[in-house]
Amino acid sequence: MSAPLRHYNFSAGPAVLPESVLEEAGRNLMSLGDTGVGIMEHSHRGKPFVAIIERAEALIRKIANVPDGYSVLFLQGGASLQFAMCPMNFLPDGGTADYLMTGSWSKKAGKEAKLFGKVHTACSSEATNFDRIPSPAETTYSDDPAYVHFTSNNTIFGTQFPTEPTPPGDAFLVCDASSDIFSRPVDVSKYGLLYAGAQKNLGPSGVTLAILRNDLLERKCREVPAMLDYKTYVEGQSLYNTPPTFGIYVLMLVLEWIEKEGGLSAIGERNEAKATKLYDYLDSSKLFKPTAAKGSRSLMNVCFVTGNEETDAAFIKYADERGLKTLKGHRSVGGMRASLYNAFPPAGVDKLIEAMQEFESTHAA
Amino acid sequence: MSAPLRHYNFSAGPAVLPESVLEEAGRNLMSLGDTGVGIMEHSHRGKPFVAIIERAEALIRKIANVPDGYSVLFLQGGASLQFAMCPMNFLPDGGTADYLMTGSWSKKAGKEAKLFGKVHTACSSEATNFDRIPSPAETTYSDDPAYVHFTSNNTIFGTQFPTEPTPPGDAFLVCDASSDIFSRPVDVSKYGLLYAGAQKNLGPSGVTLAILRNDLLERKCREVPAMLDYKTYVEGQSLYNTPPTFGIYVLMLVLEWIEKEGGLSAIGERNEAKATKLYDYLDSSKLFKPTAAKGSRSLMNVCFVTGNEETDAAFIKYADERGLKTLKGHRSVGGMRASLYNAFPPAGVDKLIEAMQEFESTHAA
Repeated sequence: MSAPLRHYNFSAGPAVLPESVLEEAGRNLMSLGDTGVGIMEHSHRGKPFVAIIERAEALIRKIANVPDGYSVLFLQGGASLQFAMCPMNFLPDGGTADYLMTGSWSKKAGKEAKLFGKVHTACSSEATNFDRIPSPAETTYSDDPAYVHFTSNNTIFGTQFPTEPTPPGDAFLVCDASSDIFSRPVDVSKYGLLYAGAQKNLGPSGVTLAILRNDLLERKCREVPAMLDYKTYVEGQSLYNTPPTFGIYVLMLVLEWIEKEGGLSAIGERNEAKATKLYDYLDSSKLFKPTAAKGSRSLMNVCFVTGNEETDAAFIKYADERGLKTLKGHRSVGGMRASLYNAFPPAGVDKLIEAMQEFESTHAA
Repeated sequence: MSAPLRHYNFSAGPAVLPESVLEEAGRNLMSLGDTGVGIMEHSHRGKPFVAIIERAEALIRKIANVPDGYSVLFLQGGASLQFAMCPMNFLPDGGTADYLMTGSWSKKAGKEAKLFGKVHTACSSEATNFDRIPSPAETTYSDDPAYVHFTSNNTIFGTQFPTEPTPPGDAFLVCDASSDIFSRPVDVSKYGLLYAGAQKNLGPSGVTLAILRNDLLERKCREVPAMLDYKTYVEGQSLYNTPPTFGIYVLMLVLEWIEKEGGLSAIGERNEAKATKLYDYLDSSKLFKPTAAKGSRSLMNVCFVTGNEETDAAFIKYADERGLKTLKGHRSVGGMRASLYNAFPPAGVDKLIEAMQEFESTHAA
């Protein structure tokens, strides 16, 4: 059987996965190793799957250097369910949580929190269509927030926090890292709760990774259903009910791949090189312009426009015909978006720049 | 490449899937058809995946003959999250919901409902370790319940409702059908809300199917987070946020397989034949005894014991060595459990009976 043709997939998520991971998953569909039972068909209580979830956790602890006193949790419902679960557990009636509003996802997160307590907008770049990350000097915290929430990378607007914000007083830091988790080294000790949908850098959709500082369980402020209580996952090692077993298996394979690639330092360097090459070209282009402000540019999602919707559409078609897929930007920004997650190959960036140069030469501004 | 050895997998869930489904999924991991992008890597907003989720919905509507006025929803979190989501949406403060307590899962469902309103136990077989489904004569509803909740099949205790209970007055019927959904014909019009984790009869774990009567949305009794609001899924066609795309794809393949096998009538007949053959043997055995009361026996999970824990353990080992896997019963019942979901091949039942006969001949009671 010949290898199927694979295009360059710039999708913002679900996104490209390492080919070696897809091959390994394929080999285990009918029988996980020599168990005679496919990976999707194994009981979550059986030894083979328990070994998988334990290995996934161990790899996360190793790769991200997770300190003692933190739990690694596998949940469902994506970041969107975390938007609700976090305040449901940690925002008391009448209490305040601070949100850094840097895009649509931050706003959605803040909206859910308002169902449980008060939300203070510590900063916002909405006035300029979220084209940048406000500086610490532009960020004002409330007096005694329960926690500070931020979105480390804004998939839609192509911006990314250069470093973590520092929460005031006793507040802990909560991060939606869905679109840049494990794309560069991370200091987990700075976070109280770090969560991410897996479908960009970690695996298929349907698995949510959360890393939680254990002492925060004592700050739980109301009774919540078992499936929405972090304690359930901490105590049950994410096996209270049937978890998304296949998703966790693929996530484990992706973590093995990250480790083999040299861990987060090496991955981070490669991601920086990919994005820098593309931004350098965009900064020099007469036709294409990046939309995110310098200093706030995302290494994961590179958003750019020609300034003319018809030309944007023509380029997207031109690129698509050359095997450069899913470059259309989100409707909030328009234009193009090239998502360059961990598994996106550097050669795809070269191909994209080549296509832009060719297109530019025939469609000069 | 030779086909890998496949054992008979009696797992209660995640459970055996049709081999043709696993083969088809395997063929599309690197590239979904000729798209050049693997099935796990496609954007949930792109045409290829939207076609998949629409086909899955259409197949459900056709196979289960879903009446107009019902929505087909794809959720996450398993039945356990539905235990909370249902009362969160439909049980008003101070209101009462009636629960038919026929096993551990009913009890867990009732426990979550107590966070939102009152729970009336309409019937219970707990006194006899949930060995049977109480009759309608033993079932007493409260005066004006918001809804009546039951578990159509009790995976742990191996019992199954022969027919749906009839809720009183204006109450609607809610069913956790996780372990017998689409295992026989179903009259959806009798239900207000029917939900099921996919991992037994429908696909891999990580997808929850819900079928909801649309007019019930008007009975929503409190503000809830977007991801816990049925309306979000109805209005957003289950694409409010990134759904478990691969799980929905496999579910679609399983639905295609059900249709090809002749639909729910044919599937139901085959399931009845498989279970009847096994119960007939058990009723005639001198060593093995079924644990569920006649008239309440599950066609999905056949639970049985020898009456001696050591002999049970010896048989489980004996069977395991013969490629009959995961026969150990749940600790609440002990003994053995043979799960015979849709995709479990009839030949596996023959093999099991053969092994029991052999074992019995050397380990007579």
